Amino acid sequence: MSSFLAELVGTMLLVFLGDGVCAATTLNKSKAQNSGWIVIATGWALAVAIPAWIFGEVSGAHINPALTIALAAIGQFPWTSVPSYIIAQMIGGVLGATLVWLMYLPHWEVTEDSAAKRGIFCTAPGIRNTGANLLSEILGTFVLVFAILGLGRVQMTDGLGTFAVGLLIFSIGLSLGGPTGYAINPARDLAPRIAHAILPIAGKGDSDWGYAWIPVIGPIIGGLIGAFLFTWIF
Amino acid sequence: MSSFLAELVGTMLLVFLGDGVCAATTLNKSKAQNSGWIVIATGWALAVAIPAWIFGEVSGAHINPALTIALAAIGQFPWTSVPSYIIAQMIGGVLGATLVWLMYLPHWEVTEDSAAKRGIFCTAPGIRNTGANLLSEILGTFVLVFAILGLGRVQMTDGLGTFAVGLLIFSIGLSLGGPTGYAINPARDLAPRIAHAILPIAGKGDSDWGYAWIPVIGPIIGGLIGAFLFTWIF
Amino acid sequence: MSSFLAELVGTMLLVFLGDGVCAATTLNKSKAQNSGWIVIATGWALAVAIPAWIFGEVSGAHINPALTIALAAIGQFPWTSVPSYIIAQMIGGVLGATLVWLMYLPHWEVTEDSAAKRGIFCTAPGIRNTGANLLSEILGTFVLVFAILGLGRVQMTDGLGTFAVGLLIFSIGLSLGGPTGYAINPARDLAPRIAHAILPIAGKGDSDWGYAWIPVIGPIIGGLIGAFLFTWIF
Amino acid sequence: MSSFLAELVGTMLLVFLGDGVCAATTLNKSKAQNSGWIVIATGWALAVAIPAWIFGEVSGAHINPALTIALAAIGQFPWTSVPSYIIAQMIGGVLGATLVWLMYLPHWEVTEDSAAKRGIFCTAPGIRNTGANLLSEILGTFVLVFAILGLGRVQMTDGLGTFAVGLLIFSIGLSLGGPTGYAINPARDLAPRIAHAILPIAGKGDSDWGYAWIPVIGPIIGGLIGAFLFTWIF
Repeated sequence: MSSFLAELVGTMLLVFLGDGVCAATTLNKSKAQNSGWIVIATGWALAVAIPAWIFGEVSGAHINPALTIALAAIGQFPWTSVPSYIIAQMIGGVLGATLVWLMYLPHWEVTEDSAAKRGIFCTAPGIRNTGANLLSEILGTFVLVFAILGLGRVQMTDGLGTFAVGLLIFSIGLSLGGPTGYAINPARDLAPRIAHAILPIAGKGDSDWGYAWIPVIGPIIGGLIGAFLFTWIF
Repeated sequence: MSSFLAELVGTMLLVFLGDGVCAATTLNKSKAQNSGWIVIATGWALAVAIPAWIFGEVSGAHINPALTIALAAIGQFPWTSVPSYIIAQMIGGVLGATLVWLMYLPHWEVTEDSAAKRGIFCTAPGIRNTGANLLSEILGTFVLVFAILGLGRVQMTDGLGTFAVGLLIFSIGLSLGGPTGYAINPARDLAPRIAHAILPIAGKGDSDWGYAWIPVIGPIIGGLIGAFLFTWIF
Repeated sequence: MSSFLAELVGTMLLVFLGDGVCAATTLNKSKAQNSGWIVIATGWALAVAIPAWIFGEVSGAHINPALTIALAAIGQFPWTSVPSYIIAQMIGGVLGATLVWLMYLPHWEVTEDSAAKRGIFCTAPGIRNTGANLLSEILGTFVLVFAILGLGRVQMTDGLGTFAVGLLIFSIGLSLGGPTGYAINPARDLAPRIAHAILPIAGKGDSDWGYAWIPVIGPIIGGLIGAFLFTWIF
Repeated sequence: MSSFLAELVGTMLLVFLGDGVCAATTLNKSKAQNSGWIVIATGWALAVAIPAWIFGEVSGAHINPALTIALAAIGQFPWTSVPSYIIAQMIGGVLGATLVWLMYLPHWEVTEDSAAKRGIFCTAPGIRNTGANLLSEILGTFVLVFAILGLGRVQMTDGLGTFAVGLLIFSIGLSLGGPTGYAINPARDLAPRIAHAILPIAGKGDSDWGYAWIPVIGPIIGGLIGAFLFTWIF
C-alpha cells in the first residue's frame, strides 16, 4: 500500500468516524442525539486512534496537513512529499464526509437547523471573533504537535504510543475544544466543508466560507510553533 | 475447550453484557436508567472486549457471523467451520439474552413501553427506511471488518490488540450507531430477537420480524465489502 | 508486607474510592452530585484497578471474600488462608467506609434523604424481591469470577491484565448493575454497612439489615458457580 | 532539556489542559458548557498523563510540589533540588493559567458569574469549613502519593505505568473530588490563583485568598502522610 493511499483512506476513516459522532449527537431521530461533549470528544479521539493504528506503519498516519507541514519544517519529513500527502488527506476528508452523509441519509431532512447540519461537517466558533478564533486554533494545534513530538520520544511498548496519541486528542477536545470546536486539522475542516458545499444535503444552508480560512491557517501556524518550540527545548 | 464452546460462551457473554447495558439504561427502577449513549456505547465496547480476551486464543473469538463469513471469504478461515461457528454464536446469543431477562426479572412488568423492551434485545432504526437502514448496517460493518483486519496487522504488545478492538467497537457505537443502533452482528440481533419471541417477558409486544433481515443481511454484505477492500488495498 | 495487610489496605482503598464515588454523586453540595451512572461505574472500576495494581503482587489483591472463597473451592488458594483474608477484607472495608465519612464530613447533615446516605455505604435493590435480587447478585458475581479466571489465562504484557480486570468491573457495573447496584463482593457491602451502623453519621436512618444477607450469600454462590463452570469448560 | 524546564513546561501543560477543561465546562458560549463531572475528571486525568509521559524521563514529571516534598521526605529525591522544582512548577502553573485565559479570551466577558470564573483557575469547597476542607485535601493527596509510590513498584510494560497514574488521578477526581474540587497539588491551585489575581480577566471578582492556604498546606500534609505510611508498610 502506498503512503498516498494510506493517508487517503486514513483521513477518510478519521472524518467518517469524527464527523459521524457529530452527526450522531446532532441529527433528529439519531439514537445518540444530545448525548453531550463526552461522546463527541471520545468519538474524535477514537476517530484518530483507529486509523493511526492501522495506517501508522505505512505512512506515519499524519491524516492532518498541519502535522505534515510541521514535520517537514523541522526536517522530520521530506518537503517533496508534502503536496501528495495533503492531496490525499483532502480527498480522504471529502470521501469521509460523503460517507457520513450516506450513513445518516434519512436524518438530514428531518433536522431543520441548517447551521447544526453544517456543524456536523465543519467547525464554527462559539463566539465569532477572528483574532480570538485564530488564536484558539493556534494554541490547540500547538499542543497537538508539541505533544505528538513529545510522545514520540517516549519509550512505549508496541501499540501503546498510538493509544497515547488518541488520549492526547481526547484531552485537547475536552479542554481546548470549547471556543472553536477544535478543528486543529485543515483536512478535518476544509475537506468536509467542500463536501458540504457539493453534496445534495437536504435543507442545507451555506457553507460559511467566511470562516473557512481560520481552521486552515490557525492549525498550520500552531503546528509550526509547536514543532519549532519542541525542537528548541528538547 | 472446543472452538464451538468458545464461540457459544463468548457470544453468550457478549449478548449478556451488551443487551444487559440496554436493559440497564431502559428499564424502570434500574439504577442506570436514562444514563445515556456514553453508557450504552461503553457497555457494548466492553461486552466485546471481555469475551475477545477470554476466548480469543481458543476460537479467535469471532462472536459474529458477519466476521466469520468475511474471514472465510478472503481465505483466512475455513468454510467448513463456518456453519458450526454460526450455530454456536446463535445459541450463545439466545442464552445471553435469556440471562438478561433473568438478571432484570422483576423490571419487565414495571416497564410499560413494549417497543423499548424489545429494543433491549434487538435493534430498530431511528427512521424506518429499508434502503437507508440496510446501507447504515453495511457501512458500520464495513468499518468493523476493515479495521479488525487492519488492527490485526499492527505490531502490538500482548493483549493490547484486543483492547484496540474494544475501542473500535466503542468508536463505531459512538459515531455510526445513531441511525440503526449498530447491530453490525447478526448473532447480536437475530439471536436475542428469537429469545424475545420465545421468552415469557412480561408485557412484551411483537418481535418486529419485518425488520429482522436487515441486521442480518446488512452486516454480512458490509463485512464482505470490508474484507475484500482490505485484501485489495493492503 | 504481609498478605493480611495487603488485603486490608487494598480493601480499604477499594471502599474509600468506591463508596467515595457514591458519596460524590449523591451528597448535597458535592461538586459531582447527580453526575450519573457513567461516573459511578467508572469510579468503581478504578476503585478496583488501583489497589489491584498496588497489592496484586503481594496478596493477589482479592479484596473480595467471594473471590477468595471461589479460588479456594477450585484449589487455587489454600483454605487455611481464607479466614485471615476475609477478616482483613472486612476490616479494610470498615476503615474505607470511615474514610468516606470523614472525606465528606460536612455533607451528611446537609443531605436529608437517609436512604440515599445509606446507599453510599451499601447496596439496595431497585425492586425489592428476595429471589430476583439474589439471582442478580449470583449472575453478576458469576460473570466476575468466571471472567477473572478467564483473563488470568490470557497472555498479557506486564500490568495490562490488571487494567483488563478494571474494565471487567466497569462492564459489570454498566451492564449488570441496574437491578441491585452490583455488590458482587461481601466486603464491599457488609463491611461498609457495619460502618454505617457504627459511625455517628448525621441524620442517618437504619442500616437495612433485612437485605444485608443477599449481597453476601449471592456473591458467594455466584462466585462458586463461576469458578466451577470455568474449571469445567476450560 | 533541564529538569527545571521540564517541570516548568510540564506544569504549564497540566494547568493549561486542567484549568482548560474547567473553562470548557463553565464559560458561556463554550461548546462543552455544562457537560458534567465526567468531562472534568477525564480532562484532569489526561492533563496529568500527557505531561507525565512527555517529561517523565527528564525530571520525573512531579508537576506537583506536594509530591516533590513527599519524595524528598522519604529520601527518594534530593532536598537541594526541591526549591528549583517548586519554582519551576509555580512559574509553569502561572503560564498555563495564562494560556487558558488566552484560549477562551472572548468568553470571559459573556460569563457573568465571577465565582464561577475564579473556579476555573483555583478550587473552592462545596461547603466552606476550614477543618473539613483541610481534611479532604489531606485525604485526597494521601491517596495520590501513596498510590503513586505503590504503582511505581509494580512491574509494568513501557509506558503503561504513566497511564495508570492518569487513571489514579481520574479515580481521585471521580471519588474524592466532591468536597473541595481536589486541588491535591499546590501548583495547580496557588499558581493559577496568582494568575487570576494578575491577569485582566473581564468581570473577575476577588481571588478568594482566605481559602488559598488550604489547597497548599493540605496537599503537603497529605503527601507526607502518604509517603511515610507507604514507606512504613511496604
